[in-house]
Amino acid sequence: MEMVLGLVAGVLTMGGIVPQISKAHRTKQTKDVSRGMLAIIISGVLLWTVYGFLKSDIPVTLTNFIAVLLNSYMLYLTYKFN
Amino acid sequence: MEMVLGLVAGVLTMGGIVPQISKAHRTKQTKDVSRGMLAIIISGVLLWTVYGFLKSDIPVTLTNFIAVLLNSYMLYLTYKFN
Repeated sequence: MEMVLGLVAGVLTMGGIVPQISKAHRTKQTKDVSRGMLAIIISGVLLWTVYGFLKSDIPVTLTNFIAVLLNSYMLYLTYKFN
Repeated sequence: MEMVLGLVAGVLTMGGIVPQISKAHRTKQTKDVSRGMLAIIISGVLLWTVYGFLKSDIPVTLTNFIAVLLNSYMLYLTYKFN
């Protein structure tokens, strides 16, 4: 039960960046998106990945690891489109 | 040790939205920011708050609860400034 809740929560916070990536691709505009936000979130989800690993918490580890990749890609887009 | 790591990770992912809020206040422009992103993240951090509560995990509960408030405020700003 908690495992399912954690996975759903993790998929949502991990996937939250997807509409932002999609919007950036559609408009090719990212000037209102804060790079500071992305940099801090990447550091945070990286630490959550380590935290989840240390606590053997699969939802936390897995979803945050994917979030590292997605947010890094969005950060790259802010350079590509500006 | 894990508690400290979790708190640092939580403060980062929670605080990631702060530079975005600050940028929105400075430029009064939010058109490139995805509302879908904010809506999904708010749902996600809300579920993380419940997950953390059920697992008696203080860093997860506390930081995600504050993240609900901060991300809701950013969502409000996308309406205020557009």
